[in-house]
Amino acid sequence: MKLWHIPAFGIDKLELIEAPRPKPEAGEVLVKIHAVSLNYRDLMVTLGQYNPKMALPRIPASDGAGEVIEIGPGIGRIKPGQRVAGIFMQKWLEGRPSAQKQHGALGGDIDGMLAEYVVLSESGLVPVPDHLTWEEAATLPCAGVTAWNAVVHAGKIKSGDTVVIQGTGGVSIFALQFAKALGARVLGTSSSNEKLDRARTLGLDAGVNYKQTQDWAKWVIEQTNGEGADLVVEVGGAGTFMPSLKAVRVGGTVAQIGVLSQTSEPVNVVPILHKQIHVQGIYVGSRADFLEMNRAISQIQLKPVVDEVFTFDRAPQALERMQSGAHFGKLVIRVA
Amino acid sequence: MKLWHIPAFGIDKLELIEAPRPKPEAGEVLVKIHAVSLNYRDLMVTLGQYNPKMALPRIPASDGAGEVIEIGPGIGRIKPGQRVAGIFMQKWLEGRPSAQKQHGALGGDIDGMLAEYVVLSESGLVPVPDHLTWEEAATLPCAGVTAWNAVVHAGKIKSGDTVVIQGTGGVSIFALQFAKALGARVLGTSSSNEKLDRARTLGLDAGVNYKQTQDWAKWVIEQTNGEGADLVVEVGGAGTFMPSLKAVRVGGTVAQIGVLSQTSEPVNVVPILHKQIHVQGIYVGSRADFLEMNRAISQIQLKPVVDEVFTFDRAPQALERMQSGAHFGKLVIRVA
Amino acid sequence: MKLWHIPAFGIDKLELIEAPRPKPEAGEVLVKIHAVSLNYRDLMVTLGQYNPKMALPRIPASDGAGEVIEIGPGIGRIKPGQRVAGIFMQKWLEGRPSAQKQHGALGGDIDGMLAEYVVLSESGLVPVPDHLTWEEAATLPCAGVTAWNAVVHAGKIKSGDTVVIQGTGGVSIFALQFAKALGARVLGTSSSNEKLDRARTLGLDAGVNYKQTQDWAKWVIEQTNGEGADLVVEVGGAGTFMPSLKAVRVGGTVAQIGVLSQTSEPVNVVPILHKQIHVQGIYVGSRADFLEMNRAISQIQLKPVVDEVFTFDRAPQALERMQSGAHFGKLVIRVA
Amino acid sequence: MKLWHIPAFGIDKLELIEAPRPKPEAGEVLVKIHAVSLNYRDLMVTLGQYNPKMALPRIPASDGAGEVIEIGPGIGRIKPGQRVAGIFMQKWLEGRPSAQKQHGALGGDIDGMLAEYVVLSESGLVPVPDHLTWEEAATLPCAGVTAWNAVVHAGKIKSGDTVVIQGTGGVSIFALQFAKALGARVLGTSSSNEKLDRARTLGLDAGVNYKQTQDWAKWVIEQTNGEGADLVVEVGGAGTFMPSLKAVRVGGTVAQIGVLSQTSEPVNVVPILHKQIHVQGIYVGSRADFLEMNRAISQIQLKPVVDEVFTFDRAPQALERMQSGAHFGKLVIRVA
Repeated sequence: MKLWHIPAFGIDKLELIEAPRPKPEAGEVLVKIHAVSLNYRDLMVTLGQYNPKMALPRIPASDGAGEVIEIGPGIGRIKPGQRVAGIFMQKWLEGRPSAQKQHGALGGDIDGMLAEYVVLSESGLVPVPDHLTWEEAATLPCAGVTAWNAVVHAGKIKSGDTVVIQGTGGVSIFALQFAKALGARVLGTSSSNEKLDRARTLGLDAGVNYKQTQDWAKWVIEQTNGEGADLVVEVGGAGTFMPSLKAVRVGGTVAQIGVLSQTSEPVNVVPILHKQIHVQGIYVGSRADFLEMNRAISQIQLKPVVDEVFTFDRAPQALERMQSGAHFGKLVIRVA
Repeated sequence: MKLWHIPAFGIDKLELIEAPRPKPEAGEVLVKIHAVSLNYRDLMVTLGQYNPKMALPRIPASDGAGEVIEIGPGIGRIKPGQRVAGIFMQKWLEGRPSAQKQHGALGGDIDGMLAEYVVLSESGLVPVPDHLTWEEAATLPCAGVTAWNAVVHAGKIKSGDTVVIQGTGGVSIFALQFAKALGARVLGTSSSNEKLDRARTLGLDAGVNYKQTQDWAKWVIEQTNGEGADLVVEVGGAGTFMPSLKAVRVGGTVAQIGVLSQTSEPVNVVPILHKQIHVQGIYVGSRADFLEMNRAISQIQLKPVVDEVFTFDRAPQALERMQSGAHFGKLVIRVA
Repeated sequence: MKLWHIPAFGIDKLELIEAPRPKPEAGEVLVKIHAVSLNYRDLMVTLGQYNPKMALPRIPASDGAGEVIEIGPGIGRIKPGQRVAGIFMQKWLEGRPSAQKQHGALGGDIDGMLAEYVVLSESGLVPVPDHLTWEEAATLPCAGVTAWNAVVHAGKIKSGDTVVIQGTGGVSIFALQFAKALGARVLGTSSSNEKLDRARTLGLDAGVNYKQTQDWAKWVIEQTNGEGADLVVEVGGAGTFMPSLKAVRVGGTVAQIGVLSQTSEPVNVVPILHKQIHVQGIYVGSRADFLEMNRAISQIQLKPVVDEVFTFDRAPQALERMQSGAHFGKLVIRVA
Repeated sequence: MKLWHIPAFGIDKLELIEAPRPKPEAGEVLVKIHAVSLNYRDLMVTLGQYNPKMALPRIPASDGAGEVIEIGPGIGRIKPGQRVAGIFMQKWLEGRPSAQKQHGALGGDIDGMLAEYVVLSESGLVPVPDHLTWEEAATLPCAGVTAWNAVVHAGKIKSGDTVVIQGTGGVSIFALQFAKALGARVLGTSSSNEKLDRARTLGLDAGVNYKQTQDWAKWVIEQTNGEGADLVVEVGGAGTFMPSLKAVRVGGTVAQIGVLSQTSEPVNVVPILHKQIHVQGIYVGSRADFLEMNRAISQIQLKPVVDEVFTFDRAPQALERMQSGAHFGKLVIRVA
């Protein structure tokens, strides 16, 4: 079979190689991968920015969907022919997180999904909703589950609440879709009026171009009659953290997800306490969260937004597109 | 009657003056103040560091306890002779916080308690536990309620959990007492071995002198078998924020309270998301929280820790003691 | 002004009388009532079944909406011309319930809204959403808030969850609308296929006629692949309590609201513990809940379902329609 | 090895037989059982009242503690020599309950612990606190975890809350100990003044003999200044359900555990809704709950209360003692 791996850090170092097809052992299943989606983390991994000490070579990409084609001994629930996706952290099945459960993330601690065939443990998979294409199903494991946890579990969003999304990447677009499905109002930021227009077709209630209106947090406060948002889905990282604290209401929630930007601004915790803000770090989620999200996606017939689909041999180009930041929604690589 | 006020910023500017005794109007009561306790905020207010634009003169101090001696028309529940304390934010009675409810804090937005007589609205008061002296009762409104909310509502502490306190100021010692009453394990930091010893007599399970062991967060991790604490009661402010994120477990809580220290270290949000930390800003609490805490204080017969009691005329010396940071527990001014 | 009152129990005893227009005192406002909606409780009050010892005469009806036309001294936020509705329990403003807060329900403990003019305290009112007619606004205080608390606070419903409603009365139809706005799947019961068809136009996913299919709980289990529903909005009362316990999933919620039916079946708590069911009694809700619901109603532009509007002089006929159980949604009396 | 089994229902039918020692397969461990504790459920199982269709013969008893003496292939964390107890439901590891997870309870759906040696899966065990004897450790799996979930997760008990326990059986005495460790006030009922006195030595704040004071719920209300208790740990079952609803405060919690008594009183749900009561069914708990409880037991050095220890050959006499209801705390059988 074919797979991409990282023999040394750098997009240009990525190699498409031939390797023996793996065999499922007891408790394992073999999945023929049909599509893989990319996250910003996959770019960082490839560039050596995620974990410079990562053992190489490594197969990148946490998110893939495919068909079970063989099962090892002792497999109960999963059957050949099932459409599945891998879960981001193979050991976080349910319950509260721990360092132990967080160890074992695909495409980071262990090999990922950018291969024609992958073997995973039975509990490392979930069935995917019937109405999704392979490309769509491949977008769920990291960006989908992260957005679900930000909106549903950290933000506890209900009809009437106001949610802020930042930009139009994978997590932000999923957060927009989930928040709208829950009856919330969604405000968004972008560097592009064109992307804001496209987000409006997905339900965005109002948008601001942060190139034209630099103090987007002030804009959020104005849009909420001076109160601030109930939830900010904070994907920007350190560089947008302080504006996010400004944009949220007294007693509101900042779902802290992002590592995109850095800052030289010193730590200032005063707004957190004076506004009694709830900052909740989100690192994807558990298998149980994934199942819960899938149930919702099926019920509301949500269609993930795919920006562009690349053929398997063009994986480096997909990562370059990620690096450009020009995408809207998810970048997908069609494997087979 | 006599009262202290701030005609201009500076401890040395504080004036003890004579003023007419106020009269309670409809819905109000007159309280003869017996004792006032100080918080770090009162020092900042006096020095002009809390709000440099504060209208002056201002009567300082949010925390005071005394006896109701006169009631205005329309007062139902409160009766002359009752022992009461004022609530920190006069408009936050219960429910979730809002900017509107947060406006109207004693000794900041409006005049405070450092006077022989004070008029407050009926809902701006709570009865204090019977077993407390006036000095002890005066310690509750800010430091007590803050610690209660940090331990009980933000941390949801139960038997078996581990809580970290920082230093031995008012909030930290209350947090120690509440956490021990709930069956938790408490670890503490201090610059003084003597203070750690004294904290041990109140139940501290283990302590570290951060002058001798600079990486106290590493010490916390060692003390918790590598896992980290369930809750850090973060009173240090920006300067201790990053170590607090290090000291807490994956999925744990940092109750963000403090403004004591600053830092030039840039914002780094990575630990928040990688460890899925819950940072909860705490700004005292509501009247309902105060009542709930008082019920607990009565049930467990908790005695607040009073460091030193100053006579009314020595209020400036009490603020200087606060400034020195040498205290253990609460500083109190006996009014009458 | 004119008002209806109950001089003695019985629909036929209701009297339309002339009385002096009340005057607002300090902290009060005068509201010109435009519409009143009925709840099953109003029928029970009129028949003497709610509280046989209720002091008479009593003005019935908890739910009314109208315009503020005069304000007493000391009124801050409310202004003449505002469109408002009364809150069900005049003393439950926010926070957890208590016996004290529950005392003072309109049209029960105190006089209600079936009058041309009503005086209420400023905190006893909330503004109503702009897009609602008077008839629609009048439906909110009891049925709307009850359904909101059942679905949002007891059930914590999110996209993908399954909710069961019973019949097509006011609470059930609001619960259907809120649950659909949150992206849930909704199953319903009725004695009429015609009503089920009408509910489908509001989003009902599947319905069962319990005259034709007596074991509706079994039907719910079949509809949920053997798992049971996440939430049953239990308006039937004792007579449907045991089937509701059967219809809910392991770990699911029964929002207990109803008193419509009785039973001679003995108490059996075994399903509650074996299925780890969460039974949450709901008794309308607080002023804060009402405001939160109104924000949602505005955001999702929800339109309450009005079954029939009666002129003011036909209030007894409206109660008879309630008694017949033939309605779908809310019965409203147009006052002016 | 020796084991007790149930070839036919009835205490007198129990047989002590010889059987081959089981061998651990992949993922399993062999435990040498030192002590077994009894629950009321074990009596019902033996009498055929729990599940009359249970396949026989069956080894009874869910609760046992012992030493790991052999491990099968693929065992990671557990080592020979470790002191462990089995978990009640072998498949409920963590997260919310489900019908699937609830299937597989020891001594019911599958064979139990009343044997010299038992093989369990690695995840079907937890380490027990170091300071406990074998007899004490054996009391934890069912009664301990049930009481922990009732007090901590259903009741969310904190210092100052009031908890009611019923009688002095295993769950009630654990609930007393946990509630006191959390700083709560505990009220208790019993048919025996002597038992109430003994409970006072464990921290019971006040007790009532329900033979002398039949309306114990009224007594609870008097003891709480007319308010009612925050939590009733309801072990009585249908026969005490209505008084428990009476004893709890508006908005309070009834943790529904018991099946001891029946009633012919018809279902009456009115108090549930009028008092907005939260009734939470409790069916033991998950492995994660057990670990969390053990951490607390270690921290507060809690010692379970053992009523009487029987030798292995006297297992039937232990069940007869259970049937008599004369015990205080837990009945234990010493196996080896």
